[in-house]
Amino acid sequence: MISETMKVLAGNNSAIRAMFEEGNRLAALYGRENVYDFSLGNPNIPAPETVKAAILDILETEESTFVHGYMSNAGYEDVRQAVAEYLNRCHGTDYGAGNIIMTVGAAGGLNDILKTLLNPGDEVLTFMPYFLEYGNYVANHGGVLRQVAVESGTFQPDPEALRAAVTERTQALIVNNPNNPTGAVYTRAALEAVAAVLTEKEKEYGHPIYILSDEPYRELVYDGAEVVWLPEIYHNAIVGYSWSKSLSLPGERIGYLCIPSQCDDFELVYTAATIANRILGSVNAPSLMQRAVMRCLGQTSDISAYDRNRKLLYGGLTELGFEAVYPDGAFYLWLKVPDGDDKAFCEKAKKYNILMVPGSSFAGSGYVRLAYCVSEDTIRRSLPAFAKLAADCGLAGAL
Amino acid sequence: MISETMKVLAGNNSAIRAMFEEGNRLAALYGRENVYDFSLGNPNIPAPETVKAAILDILETEESTFVHGYMSNAGYEDVRQAVAEYLNRCHGTDYGAGNIIMTVGAAGGLNDILKTLLNPGDEVLTFMPYFLEYGNYVANHGGVLRQVAVESGTFQPDPEALRAAVTERTQALIVNNPNNPTGAVYTRAALEAVAAVLTEKEKEYGHPIYILSDEPYRELVYDGAEVVWLPEIYHNAIVGYSWSKSLSLPGERIGYLCIPSQCDDFELVYTAATIANRILGSVNAPSLMQRAVMRCLGQTSDISAYDRNRKLLYGGLTELGFEAVYPDGAFYLWLKVPDGDDKAFCEKAKKYNILMVPGSSFAGSGYVRLAYCVSEDTIRRSLPAFAKLAADCGLAGAL
Repeated sequence: MISETMKVLAGNNSAIRAMFEEGNRLAALYGRENVYDFSLGNPNIPAPETVKAAILDILETEESTFVHGYMSNAGYEDVRQAVAEYLNRCHGTDYGAGNIIMTVGAAGGLNDILKTLLNPGDEVLTFMPYFLEYGNYVANHGGVLRQVAVESGTFQPDPEALRAAVTERTQALIVNNPNNPTGAVYTRAALEAVAAVLTEKEKEYGHPIYILSDEPYRELVYDGAEVVWLPEIYHNAIVGYSWSKSLSLPGERIGYLCIPSQCDDFELVYTAATIANRILGSVNAPSLMQRAVMRCLGQTSDISAYDRNRKLLYGGLTELGFEAVYPDGAFYLWLKVPDGDDKAFCEKAKKYNILMVPGSSFAGSGYVRLAYCVSEDTIRRSLPAFAKLAADCGLAGAL
Repeated sequence: MISETMKVLAGNNSAIRAMFEEGNRLAALYGRENVYDFSLGNPNIPAPETVKAAILDILETEESTFVHGYMSNAGYEDVRQAVAEYLNRCHGTDYGAGNIIMTVGAAGGLNDILKTLLNPGDEVLTFMPYFLEYGNYVANHGGVLRQVAVESGTFQPDPEALRAAVTERTQALIVNNPNNPTGAVYTRAALEAVAAVLTEKEKEYGHPIYILSDEPYRELVYDGAEVVWLPEIYHNAIVGYSWSKSLSLPGERIGYLCIPSQCDDFELVYTAATIANRILGSVNAPSLMQRAVMRCLGQTSDISAYDRNRKLLYGGLTELGFEAVYPDGAFYLWLKVPDGDDKAFCEKAKKYNILMVPGSSFAGSGYVRLAYCVSEDTIRRSLPAFAKLAADCGLAGAL
C-alpha cells in the first residue's frame, strides 16, 4: 500500500510513458530521422567548451576531498560569492554569498523555498498556462496551487485576474519568465502591475506575499528582449535559477536561489531554505558542478541556433496558416490549434510523425507546445509533414 | 511568516552553527592543527584516481548533450543495468535496470521512498541511536518517526523492542547498517530476528512493512565483518546506497535505490519512487556522476586508512580508561561518557581542543560520537589531549 497521492501520480504517469513509447514505435517503423519530435525541452546544443575545460582544470588543480567533499548546505562560500558578484555586475545589486543558496537545479530550489514558506493549506498562485510540475512542488509541502488567467493572445500577466485570485492564505506567486510553455517574456509594465497588486494585498492582509521567479530560460531571449530582474521592482522577490538551459547541463542539476536581504524575514527565510535544501535530500548542490559553473558565469551555449530554429519554425508554420505566439524567449512555440481540440490535434499530428505536447498538459487547452531545441535539419524536414497536417486541418496556407 | 515547522528547525540550527563557530574560534586561537575535530563525517581520504580518470574519459569520448542531458527520471538505462549486474555479482541476485533508481545520494533516495510509502500519520521505526535527520525525512512526507531500543552494550537490534513498537500504522523500518553513530555492524542473527518480527506483524496487520536499509557505509567494514544483503532475508527490503563514503564523493550527491521485484506492490512502488525522485526537485541524479560511478563499481577509496585510525583511536582511548563500542564498520567511535552527561563531556573536551558530537544528537545520550575520518596524525596528536580529558574525568588509565 503506497501513499494515496503517489498512487494517483503513478496512474497518470502512464500517459507520459505512452507518448514516449509512441515516439519509439514511430522511430522503429519509419526511422528516428523521420520522426519529428518536438515534445522534449532537452537542449540539443552542446555545453560550451569552457565547461569541459573548467572541469578538467578543477580535477587537475583542486584537492579531491575539497572538490568532492561536503561544504555548507548552502554551497561553497567562494562559489556563492562569485554568483552574487556576477548578479551585482548584471543588475547593479549588492548581493553577497549570504544571499545565495546553490541548489539541485531550479526544481530543487523551488522545492526548498516552498518548504520554507508553506504551512498546510497555504495558497500559491501561478499564471496559466504553466509547467504543471509546479502543482506537485506546492503539494509536496502541503500547499495548494491556484491558477491565474493571463491576457489572451499576448499571454502577459493580467493584474486584475491576479487581484481577484489573492486571498488571505496566499503565500507566494510563482512567475516563470521567460515562459514555458508560451515563449512569452513578461514586459516591465506587466510585472510592475503585478508588483503593485501584491504590495497592495500585502498591506490588506498584513503578511508578506513572495514572488518566486523561476528563471531557467533567463538568457534564452531574442531580438534583445529584456528579462526584468524582479527584485528590482518588488521587495519580496526571490529568484530561482538553473544552468540547465543556458549551459546545456539539465542532467547535472545545478542552480541557485537568490534571496535578497530586502525580503521580509530575510534571515529566517535564508536559514530555513538552507535547512530545507539539506533535509529534502539534496544536502547540497553537486559539488564539482558548483565549482565548474563558478568558472563559466556569464557564458552560454550557442543560443543563436535556437534563434534560427525559432524563426524557421514560426515562419514555416504561420505560412501554412497556423497561428502561434511569436516567442521572445525560451525554446518553445505555443501554437493555436485550429479547432481548439489540442489532444485530438496531437493525435492527428502523429499520423505525420510529428510529436508535440497538448496545451492541456500546461493548463492551456486549445494550444500545443513545440520544443524547438532540436536540429535545424529536423525543423526543415518536418515542414512538409506540417503541410500535410495543415491540409488535414483545412488550413488555407496549405493549399 | 515562514512555515511553523521550518521556524522550529531554523531555531535549532543555531546549536550546529555554534559548534562550527566554536571550531573556528579554537582554530584561530590555537591553530587549525592543534584543534582535534572529530565532529564531521566528511571523508578525509581522496577519491580513487579511477574516478578522475573516468570523468576525463567520459568528457573526451561521450557526447555533451548525452553526458549532461536529461535521461529517464530513474537514471540512465545503462548505468542502472551496470549497477544491477554489479549487485548480482555480489549477492547472487537477478536484478535488472528496472530495479534501480539513481538518486541524489542516500538522503535523496530515502526521501523518494518515504514520499512513495507514507500517508499522513503513518509511522516509521528506527533503532536508537540514529542519524537524527531521519526524523526530518519522515516528517517531510507527513509521517512520524518512532524510536526502537537496541540491546545495551552491543547496540544490536532488539527484536522484542521492535515487536512492541510496531503498530497498525507502521509502514517501514529504517535500518542503518553499518551504523552511524555506533559503528556497529548488525549480525545476520539479529537481522533475521528483525525480519521474523516484521513478517509476523505483516500477517497480523495485513499490509506490507518495508525495511528501508540505508547503507552508505556498506564497504567500510573491518576484520571481514559481513554486511548482510537484507533482501536476501526479508521479502520487503529496499536498499538505499550512496558512493559518498566508499568513493569519497559526499558532495557529489550520487547514490541509488534498489527495489527488488519480490517486494509487495513492486511495480507501483518503483513507478511512484521514480516520480518522487522527479517531483521532489531532484528530477534525476547528477548525470556526469552517474556515468562516472558506473565505471568505478566495486572500487573504493583507501579504506585501510580508516582501519588504522580505528585501531589507533580505540586503543588509545581505552588505554586511558574510556569505554567504547569496538567499531566493526563506518568511521565512528561510540564512546561511553564516564559520568553519563554527554553534553557536559563535550563542553569539557573543548578545553582540550577536542570537538565531538554529544550522543543526544543521535538519541543516544550518555555517549559521544567521534568521527575518525581524519588524518592519522590528528589522532596521534590528540591522544595527549584525551589524556588530560581522562584525568579531568578522574579515569584510572590517565593516572
